[in-house]
Amino acid sequence: MAISSLLLNPYTPHLPPKPPTRLHKTTKTSTCRNSLPKTTTTNPLLKDPNHQLSRKNVLQKAYPTESSALEFDVSDEKFQELVDRRCADNLRMLILDSVQKAKAGHPGMALGMAEIGYFLYRHVLRYNPRNPKWFNRDRFVLSAGHGCLLQYVCLHLAGFQSVQVEDLKRLCKLGSRTPGHPENTVTDGIEVTTGPLGQGVANAVGLALAEAHLAARFNKPDVAVVDHRTYCIMGDGCAMEGISHEAASLAAHWKLNKLTLIYDDNSNTIDGPTDLAFTEDISLRFKALGWNTITVDDTHSNMRSFKNAVKTRIGKLSKKEGTSRAHHGVFDEDDEKQMKQKVKWDNREPFYVIPMVYREMQVQADHGEELERDWYSKLYYYQSKYPQEAVEFKSLLYDGMLPGWENSLPTWSTSDPLDATRGYSEKCLNQLAKVLPGLIGGSADLASSNKVYLHKYGDFQQPASPGGRNIRYGVREHAMAGISNGIALHGGGLIPFAATFLVKTGPTHQPIEHLVGLRAIPRLLLFRPADGNETSGAYKVAVANRDVPSVIALSRQKVAAHVEGTSADAVARGGYIVSDNSVPNLPEIILIGTGSELCLCEGSASVLRKEGRRVRVVSLVCWRLFDRQPVEYKEKVLPPGVSRRVSVEAGSPIGWREYVGPEGVVLGVEEFGASGAYLDTFKKFGFTEENVTRVAKRLLSQ
Amino acid sequence: MAISSLLLNPYTPHLPPKPPTRLHKTTKTSTCRNSLPKTTTTNPLLKDPNHQLSRKNVLQKAYPTESSALEFDVSDEKFQELVDRRCADNLRMLILDSVQKAKAGHPGMALGMAEIGYFLYRHVLRYNPRNPKWFNRDRFVLSAGHGCLLQYVCLHLAGFQSVQVEDLKRLCKLGSRTPGHPENTVTDGIEVTTGPLGQGVANAVGLALAEAHLAARFNKPDVAVVDHRTYCIMGDGCAMEGISHEAASLAAHWKLNKLTLIYDDNSNTIDGPTDLAFTEDISLRFKALGWNTITVDDTHSNMRSFKNAVKTRIGKLSKKEGTSRAHHGVFDEDDEKQMKQKVKWDNREPFYVIPMVYREMQVQADHGEELERDWYSKLYYYQSKYPQEAVEFKSLLYDGMLPGWENSLPTWSTSDPLDATRGYSEKCLNQLAKVLPGLIGGSADLASSNKVYLHKYGDFQQPASPGGRNIRYGVREHAMAGISNGIALHGGGLIPFAATFLVKTGPTHQPIEHLVGLRAIPRLLLFRPADGNETSGAYKVAVANRDVPSVIALSRQKVAAHVEGTSADAVARGGYIVSDNSVPNLPEIILIGTGSELCLCEGSASVLRKEGRRVRVVSLVCWRLFDRQPVEYKEKVLPPGVSRRVSVEAGSPIGWREYVGPEGVVLGVEEFGASGAYLDTFKKFGFTEENVTRVAKRLLSQ
Repeated sequence: MAISSLLLNPYTPHLPPKPPTRLHKTTKTSTCRNSLPKTTTTNPLLKDPNHQLSRKNVLQKAYPTESSALEFDVSDEKFQELVDRRCADNLRMLILDSVQKAKAGHPGMALGMAEIGYFLYRHVLRYNPRNPKWFNRDRFVLSAGHGCLLQYVCLHLAGFQSVQVEDLKRLCKLGSRTPGHPENTVTDGIEVTTGPLGQGVANAVGLALAEAHLAARFNKPDVAVVDHRTYCIMGDGCAMEGISHEAASLAAHWKLNKLTLIYDDNSNTIDGPTDLAFTEDISLRFKALGWNTITVDDTHSNMRSFKNAVKTRIGKLSKKEGTSRAHHGVFDEDDEKQMKQKVKWDNREPFYVIPMVYREMQVQADHGEELERDWYSKLYYYQSKYPQEAVEFKSLLYDGMLPGWENSLPTWSTSDPLDATRGYSEKCLNQLAKVLPGLIGGSADLASSNKVYLHKYGDFQQPASPGGRNIRYGVREHAMAGISNGIALHGGGLIPFAATFLVKTGPTHQPIEHLVGLRAIPRLLLFRPADGNETSGAYKVAVANRDVPSVIALSRQKVAAHVEGTSADAVARGGYIVSDNSVPNLPEIILIGTGSELCLCEGSASVLRKEGRRVRVVSLVCWRLFDRQPVEYKEKVLPPGVSRRVSVEAGSPIGWREYVGPEGVVLGVEEFGASGAYLDTFKKFGFTEENVTRVAKRLLSQ
Repeated sequence: MAISSLLLNPYTPHLPPKPPTRLHKTTKTSTCRNSLPKTTTTNPLLKDPNHQLSRKNVLQKAYPTESSALEFDVSDEKFQELVDRRCADNLRMLILDSVQKAKAGHPGMALGMAEIGYFLYRHVLRYNPRNPKWFNRDRFVLSAGHGCLLQYVCLHLAGFQSVQVEDLKRLCKLGSRTPGHPENTVTDGIEVTTGPLGQGVANAVGLALAEAHLAARFNKPDVAVVDHRTYCIMGDGCAMEGISHEAASLAAHWKLNKLTLIYDDNSNTIDGPTDLAFTEDISLRFKALGWNTITVDDTHSNMRSFKNAVKTRIGKLSKKEGTSRAHHGVFDEDDEKQMKQKVKWDNREPFYVIPMVYREMQVQADHGEELERDWYSKLYYYQSKYPQEAVEFKSLLYDGMLPGWENSLPTWSTSDPLDATRGYSEKCLNQLAKVLPGLIGGSADLASSNKVYLHKYGDFQQPASPGGRNIRYGVREHAMAGISNGIALHGGGLIPFAATFLVKTGPTHQPIEHLVGLRAIPRLLLFRPADGNETSGAYKVAVANRDVPSVIALSRQKVAAHVEGTSADAVARGGYIVSDNSVPNLPEIILIGTGSELCLCEGSASVLRKEGRRVRVVSLVCWRLFDRQPVEYKEKVLPPGVSRRVSVEAGSPIGWREYVGPEGVVLGVEEFGASGAYLDTFKKFGFTEENVTRVAKRLLSQ
């Protein structure tokens, strides 16, 4: 049943060699990182006679046979191995106690991977628990997020304040710092929120991309200010999901060789043995993508670090070990008892930690603290030798925005030539690129259609521009989104953008459900700008609100006009009056539009006004921002007394009733769209000035 | 630049041999299919001296040098090759004329793949244009749907009534039978609507699965009533998309060896050369999944059929040939002219077809007609020898529903033990499986959680149950959806179902946007049943409306009660009165709930009624069905005069205003959900009887 784990590394050995780039150099430096960090054996703590004694006692008691042959010397590898083994025992007991206390959670994977988790936090990852956000730390992503208990226990033992024993006891409880899947906004030490399988792999690729990009831009032959690694644990489920495949393909293409994927092949899924549905040769598949793959029961010298973890068995120690029944849920009393017996846990209190274990983990924490100090020294050196680069690098580290950045956004007047809003967007993006040195992104093979190319900044990871700021995602929308999240979460001032046709997020080419689907996502800001100025305004708000994602829905076709009365600044309020010929707040009718349909409202308003009607036109460019305005403002824009309202938007009508009121008319689309020239299809679905006027007149006559 | 195309076939040569199953037998039979069908040279048309002469004349004029050495004999392979070449020339000219006339479309891929398209329709695919829906036809899917012009031209030449020259002239025009991406509901001969890249691969896997399943269930050693193949053209974009990877992995796992993927490797994407973002060894990758891969510039004997098509060059003939500029858009006048010169097209009228070409294609159409007749003979034989199986098979061919099927659905009374609605669903599905012999489906590794296992029907393609009706999708939600669509479109009475946690369709584990997102999809029916009876009702409507997809959103936790007053039959109306203590249509307040929240409304209503209030409870189990009811019915359920209304649903509030009116209160969730025990989280978000009562009282006091 149990198969060995794999360690995967994008390497592309079968491709012809390329001319060496800066990135290749950093590889060589970092290859040594797979062996034990040298400092671990020189840490004074390890040489402390008291700690030595306590290790000796622990081992003699736990493994009398194995330890009888030991030297008990800090330089003895077998000594360290046995120490590691006992630490992993303790880790398993904490996992067991947590899940029994919570009566919830997924112990199977956590128990199976205990050695690997321990090993990563004890010997591999570079971090400083006293400053979890230290920029040059290694990043770790648990893509199989349901195994988060493993990470919580590691974080606890490693000394992160965010996970105390009290937190372990509240596993999966509402409001705890140990939710059922790891959340980076809740728990320091968690880099990204995971759970939906496979997405963590894309996030990890984004983190590694950010490192590679910044390293290429800022490192110098004599000093590497950006130099860390990314590790990701991927389960069977992650490996089956298409997004992990897309992301792995890109990682290899970009030669992100400081990214390590650890594949936990425990042969079980929820429904039974993995081979019910998964019989690939996964090692060969990753090789085909260009990865260097290593099976850890190999004796590969770089991998000796993982030698205690050659096999994983889901639910290790339990009677359910090796079966899908161990995937989630608590253990019965008998099982719990025999699990504790197996590791000679005697009658220890739940959540007991052998003091030796804390001290062992302390070694790696001390090491991380030392590395952070070293890094600051490097920064000082860098600053003195490369002052100009240091200014940009440090500005990126802080927030990555040059003062007055928002003034760079273009403005348009009604006499400027007309364009599609994707064209206005191109100008905005290219202006922003100059004042936001962290702006980086691309499209899923639609850069030329989406017009998102940053013309002066080259392609990321091309030989001529390893630090390029345009990312070529190929036709891989899902991975693009996951990688963008990884870039955003890396820190270092990077501001990712990603572009595709909005229809590409749906199952057909003629969908009408996107806008409302996006509006329903909490916090996300969806903009549908009507012209150049609103496009500028949308970018301004999006960049200023980097803590939430923004979607700017742009037009493919030229807009019919620059709408007089639109305003970049007003976009921040989400909705505003574009034009009105009534005495204040006494229009007979309000026409509400978004995007390319705002023009239709304006056109129709002109007709109606010529016939003596008092008409207001409102742009509702971002619902969520409008909803957040004070009632007084909202009632100024949409006065409760004006019940004749028409909304015009080429999408699902769902949700518009909130703005048009019970007597208003929603002009939307309830059927699939249609293939055809856009003016023909707009006519078919009633998106013409004439139809808006007709509907408005019908309302006015009531 | 141009690289050879690949032909891929799931084969799993590297896996240990499994005991032979029925499926293996069919493989052997069908392997011969890759050589030219024998009948093609025996068709009387080919021997007709007039046709012989016209072929000779055509070739002598078009290729004087090559044809001078020819025997001009129907059995001469070189003769046929040259005929094929001229036919492909004509095909290219039709592609050119169509795109020039429409001033739209994607000629690049169509021009590049002209030989392959021609070859498939002339020598490989088995179809009958006079009966495009013939059950035992081969299925062809153009996953790179933007290349549909290729297929339209092939369908036209092959004699499908659905694509006339007039239709080619209306390419991409609104309402035409030749839309910008192929749509199976618009054009006979198109099997599935494609366009979103990669999804066609999953659809093709679904079609092949359906064939394999039906073949395993019905074929007998002496007669195969189900025996056809599935072909799919996959572009670079398709190959990059995760869904194609998921689907390809499953196809290999299931050994669907009557499926052939043709990979069009034309080295170009919209943004430039494919290797900007795609440098995999795709042949090796498919091998790793278990496919048999063949490069067509091989001299592999099975592949000689494709020898004219060893290389594809995007936009072949054009000056833009081999570049991404050929991907879409018209050609300038000069280019058009030289393209026509290259194939000696002289000054022929646009849309000219050499009569020989129509006659050539007629050969394959005649062959298909003959095969259909043979198939009917087989059916007669089958019916006489296997009468019992024939009854089931024929019932499946017609609609796959045994009379009175709906009576099999279980009913529940208030005294029955409580369960989660997923538990009620399990009973419904297992009852339906008995009366719907075509019911087949599964889950993305959550069969045990979703409770969708058909207990008496085995796993599809397991040695013990090759015709099993449970599909193990592994953790591959996107492919599961695409494969289900393929199964549904195969015909033959199969009714696919697919299950996952609704959250798995979203990017986080705590989303609230699904329900409204699904409601916005045109035609789809979203049900949120409150208890067992509503679950039965939802299944009844879903099965009866197989022309649209249905989503039944079920609860993980036990419902709090069987709600007295719910009704399976009433589900068909989408919304109905569950309870009311007022004189008809005079409630003071209406509480509207769905799913597990309906209980809260009932509980709150009881409290309010005890305090003397007149309260109505309404279940709005399916918005779309309710919206379709006559105004009178809707106003009976939600009388316009009753403005105090509360809706209760654990999801985004968007869209509820339509039902609660301007003064009503929408109890929904606007933030991400939270990890915790469900009662705790429900309390946090206000989904308690007490909170509903509190809100209702506030409204009542106004």
